[in-house]
Amino acid sequence: MSLIVVGSVAYDGVETPHGKVDRMLGGAATYIALSAGYFTKVGIVAVVGDDFAKEDVDLLSSRGFDLTGLERVPGGKTFFWAGKYSPDMNDRETLRTDLNVFADFNPKIPAAYRSSPYLFLGNIQPELQRSVRAQMNGVRLTGGDTMNYWIRDFRPQLLETLKQWDFLLINDAEARQLSGAYNLRRAAAKILDMGPHTLIIKRGEYGAILFRLDTHFMVPGYLLEDVFDPTGAGDSFAGGFIGYLAGQGISLQEGEIDQAELRRAVIYGSVMGSFCCEKFGVDRFRTLTREEIEARYQEFKTCTAF
Amino acid sequence: MSLIVVGSVAYDGVETPHGKVDRMLGGAATYIALSAGYFTKVGIVAVVGDDFAKEDVDLLSSRGFDLTGLERVPGGKTFFWAGKYSPDMNDRETLRTDLNVFADFNPKIPAAYRSSPYLFLGNIQPELQRSVRAQMNGVRLTGGDTMNYWIRDFRPQLLETLKQWDFLLINDAEARQLSGAYNLRRAAAKILDMGPHTLIIKRGEYGAILFRLDTHFMVPGYLLEDVFDPTGAGDSFAGGFIGYLAGQGISLQEGEIDQAELRRAVIYGSVMGSFCCEKFGVDRFRTLTREEIEARYQEFKTCTAF
Repeated sequence: MSLIVVGSVAYDGVETPHGKVDRMLGGAATYIALSAGYFTKVGIVAVVGDDFAKEDVDLLSSRGFDLTGLERVPGGKTFFWAGKYSPDMNDRETLRTDLNVFADFNPKIPAAYRSSPYLFLGNIQPELQRSVRAQMNGVRLTGGDTMNYWIRDFRPQLLETLKQWDFLLINDAEARQLSGAYNLRRAAAKILDMGPHTLIIKRGEYGAILFRLDTHFMVPGYLLEDVFDPTGAGDSFAGGFIGYLAGQGISLQEGEIDQAELRRAVIYGSVMGSFCCEKFGVDRFRTLTREEIEARYQEFKTCTAF
Repeated sequence: MSLIVVGSVAYDGVETPHGKVDRMLGGAATYIALSAGYFTKVGIVAVVGDDFAKEDVDLLSSRGFDLTGLERVPGGKTFFWAGKYSPDMNDRETLRTDLNVFADFNPKIPAAYRSSPYLFLGNIQPELQRSVRAQMNGVRLTGGDTMNYWIRDFRPQLLETLKQWDFLLINDAEARQLSGAYNLRRAAAKILDMGPHTLIIKRGEYGAILFRLDTHFMVPGYLLEDVFDPTGAGDSFAGGFIGYLAGQGISLQEGEIDQAELRRAVIYGSVMGSFCCEKFGVDRFRTLTREEIEARYQEFKTCTAF
């Protein structure tokens, strides 16, 4: 496997102005893997209950993912989350969070995964993220996500974890909370002092910004005509970003940085995030082709070049 | 004169998290002209009271503006607006609006202005905007701004006015209100049906989008480290956009469109809007040089190219 993805595999209940689905495949690791799978070989580390449906395993298998690390807990139930989006879909309310088997998730990295060069740590407890990193041998590029809960209540652990990361990929609210600075340029400078040499701040419909010590790169959000369901868009962005880097064999270590490839990775992230919103849940990834991805990449170029 | 700018010249009271100024030069036409003046020769059409200070006339004169169209009403008072920004400066509350002489503004275009090829109609009553257009001979490019009040209460007049415009430059909330569509791509399609062949939607800190029938161009907002006062940023954008087109002698008429120049105009608009926020009121324009403008234009390229 080229890329190891650690995080939640879940069922989601989602309501948007376009409709309502009571239960469908979701979870950060699911979206990250489905998105990254267009660019590289992926191994998943996650936990599910024995209610996890065969058709969902089949979808993941059909992409060639290594599922050795997908632990199934007998008698357990899969993590369930339900939420409802505001009419403009820029906000959402969590209606239900049943952690179930995810509450005791203690990721074990299968032997066959340990020499993989790329590692993406989805949004889980920072100490678990660190323990995963410690189980890897010779990883070339480590990065991940986090969230408000860990930033607020597990700050020392999170700061310890971040020291080992090459990149951090979070949204603007999280960047502000983590840094204590409202202004994104100042926030980025503070975060780049915490360890990661690369920071990607996602801004939802407004795009994303890539920060490094002396430079930044901004991409506007793709202008969709219909946003059906934004669930998983940020994770799909992450999958496109890390997936592209892994697929190209790119390292972000200091001294061997290819700025142009890094920017392309941000665009592929944006492309994958935009596709994700076009249908409910993971549905867009059931039919999406690499040709459509390339066409949208070109569209980004056409819509931003001057 | 190459460009005629019609709109308010005013005094503003502004409070932001960075400070408070009780009374300073402001008004849409002021910002538009000061910004456009870096690119082209400008004639102003506006009205002030006899409280309008000599130092403010001097600032405008120092830029070589033709002030023949700056009417001074004896015994009248200049339009006064006061507002207070929210802590994140994305919202503002109007504390006071004294229209004063602006209430009876009935723009008369001086004979020397009438053959000018470029016309920018600032945010005034739509019928007045139309009457100005009618006073011009051989204008090559007309565009302007409007606001929620005219969209809601003067809709038929506004729609009649828009039929004659080449471009409309408004913010996202106005575009949604005018079109009745929340999605900006759909909103743009509806507005381009109303007359203007070019639409620029300003998104504040998130940048701007240029729409034409079959294409759009997105630019992210410049990432400032300190936003002191956003007042006038949108008008400064307008000044940079129309000023650049006027300075280059560019027409937007169908059949003779230079897409690349149009995109450059949007970037210059973004550049000028970003500079405006760096100091209170018009202060940044007192020292800003053309060299700084070019440097920031290049910065936009560096931060967005891939």
